[in-house]
Amino acid sequence: MGEQPTHADLCRFLDAQVPFVKSLGISCEEFRPGYAVARWKRDPQWLRPGGYLFGGGLMSLADAALYMAILGQIGLKAMAVTIELKMNFLRPAIGGDVLAQAQVLKVGQRIAYGEVRLFMADAQDKLIAHATCSYAMPDSERR
Amino acid sequence: MGEQPTHADLCRFLDAQVPFVKSLGISCEEFRPGYAVARWKRDPQWLRPGGYLFGGGLMSLADAALYMAILGQIGLKAMAVTIELKMNFLRPAIGGDVLAQAQVLKVGQRIAYGEVRLFMADAQDKLIAHATCSYAMPDSERR
Amino acid sequence: MGEQPTHADLCRFLDAQVPFVKSLGISCEEFRPGYAVARWKRDPQWLRPGGYLFGGGLMSLADAALYMAILGQIGLKAMAVTIELKMNFLRPAIGGDVLAQAQVLKVGQRIAYGEVRLFMADAQDKLIAHATCSYAMPDSERR
Amino acid sequence: MGEQPTHADLCRFLDAQVPFVKSLGISCEEFRPGYAVARWKRDPQWLRPGGYLFGGGLMSLADAALYMAILGQIGLKAMAVTIELKMNFLRPAIGGDVLAQAQVLKVGQRIAYGEVRLFMADAQDKLIAHATCSYAMPDSERR
Repeated sequence: MGEQPTHADLCRFLDAQVPFVKSLGISCEEFRPGYAVARWKRDPQWLRPGGYLFGGGLMSLADAALYMAILGQIGLKAMAVTIELKMNFLRPAIGGDVLAQAQVLKVGQRIAYGEVRLFMADAQDKLIAHATCSYAMPDSERR
Repeated sequence: MGEQPTHADLCRFLDAQVPFVKSLGISCEEFRPGYAVARWKRDPQWLRPGGYLFGGGLMSLADAALYMAILGQIGLKAMAVTIELKMNFLRPAIGGDVLAQAQVLKVGQRIAYGEVRLFMADAQDKLIAHATCSYAMPDSERR
Repeated sequence: MGEQPTHADLCRFLDAQVPFVKSLGISCEEFRPGYAVARWKRDPQWLRPGGYLFGGGLMSLADAALYMAILGQIGLKAMAVTIELKMNFLRPAIGGDVLAQAQVLKVGQRIAYGEVRLFMADAQDKLIAHATCSYAMPDSERR
Repeated sequence: MGEQPTHADLCRFLDAQVPFVKSLGISCEEFRPGYAVARWKRDPQWLRPGGYLFGGGLMSLADAALYMAILGQIGLKAMAVTIELKMNFLRPAIGGDVLAQAQVLKVGQRIAYGEVRLFMADAQDKLIAHATCSYAMPDSERR
C-alpha cells in the first residue's frame, strides 16, 4: 500500500515513534512487506531467577515485530494502535537472545492482523511463544 | 488454599522471584485472597511521543497484578508459569500512574485464571485496558 | 447512544438478523443498556457423551449475549461484525440450561468490547466459562 | 506419541466422542500427525441474511480441526478438554463450504496448542478467520 522503506528509515522511525523498543534492547533484523524478524538482546535485568525471560518482554517483542511487518507493508505511518494481543507461552525462555518472526495475515481498511512466532536465537526449531495481534489502521488508510 | 501472607512477605517474595517487576516500577497496592491491585509508577522512559504508555508495560502490569491475586489465594509459592495472556487496549493510556485491579475467576488443580482491569490512577471510571490470563499451577498443588 | 428498544423489539430483530441464535435454542432473558443475560436451552443434540455441552455452542451463546448487551446500548442496528472472541473454559458444562451474563466494557466509535460470564442455570455460583469479545461498530456510528 | 490412526478410525472416534461435529456438518478432509483439514458443509440453516456464516460455527470448525490434528499426533484418546480458544474474524464468510487447516505448534505433557486458518473452499488464497487454541492433555499423557 505505501512505499517500501529502507531498514535505516525504519530504525529512525522506530526510535522516534516507539523509543522504548530500543530501551528494551529490541531491534529489527529483517523486514519486507508483511514480514519482519525482531531480536531481543539478552540482558540480565530482564531475567527471573533461573535465567527465565519475563513474559511482558516477550509480549513487547511480539508487538514490535508485527508493527515492523505492518510498516513494511503500508509504509512508515504513525499508526498502529494495538487493539488486542494474545500470547501463549509454550516453553521456558531461558538464556540468550530471542527472535520473533512476524507475519501479517490481513491488512484491511480498519484493522491489520497477524501472528508472531518466538524462539531462542540458538534453538530455532523450538517455539517458546506464539502471539496474535490486531492493530487499528490510521484514519488516512480508510479512503 | 495456602496461608495468607502479609504485604511485606509478598513484597520480599516478588523481589526474589520476579525482580523485573520492581525494575519496571510496579508495586502492590492491595491484596487479599483472589484479588489484588498493582500500581505502575509513571516514568518517562516508558512513554511514546505524546505521553502514551507502551503496551508491553501494560501487559506486564496485568500479569503481575493477577500473579499477586493468585499468591494471595494459594500462598507464596514459586508457581505461576503464565500459559496465556490476552489484553484489549480500550483507551489511550496517557500520562500518570496506572492501576490494575486483578480478580481471580478460578483456581483449579491445573490452571488458575482471572481478569484484570486497568485504568489511570486519576481517572478510575475509564478503563484503558482489560486482560484475561491463565497460569499453570505448581505440581505440588495437584495432589 | 440509540433509543432503548423493548424486549419484543429485540427478539424480532434477532430473529431477522441472526436467525441461527433461535435455531441453537438461545434466547434473551434480560437486557438493558450495556448488559444482557442470554439462556441456552438444554438440547440433547448439543451434548457429548457424559452430558457435556460443546464448546462452539458456548462460544455462540457468549457472542449472542454480548451482541444483545451492545444493542441494548446503541439501539437496534444491523452492526456488530464480531472482530475477535476468546473463551476460557473453566469447568465442565454438564447437563441443563446455561446462562450468559454479558457486560459491555467500552463502546467506542470503531469498536465495542465486553466480557461474558457463563454458568449453569442451576449453579450460578460457579463459572463454567468466561469470554471477551470485540465488535466492529457500524459506519453510521462513526460520525 | 500414540499410534497413527486411519481416517476411518478417526471418523468412528469423532462420531462417538463429539457427535455434534457431524450434526453441524463438519467432516475431516485430511489428517496426519500434527496437521488436519476439516470441512464445514454449507447449510442454509447456519446463514445470516446476506449469506453470512455464523461465528459460533466457525469457532466450532476450528476447534474440531485442531482436535483432529492433535489426535493425529497422539492417537485416539478421549482427551482434549479445550482450555481456551480465540478467533479473529478477518473477512466476511459468505456462501459455500469452509475449510479449516489446523497446525499443532506444541504438544506438551499438560497442554497442546495450535493454530487454525479458515477460508472458503472456493477462494483458498483469502483467510476468513484465524484461531489459536489450547487443550488440556489427558492425565495418562503426564507420566
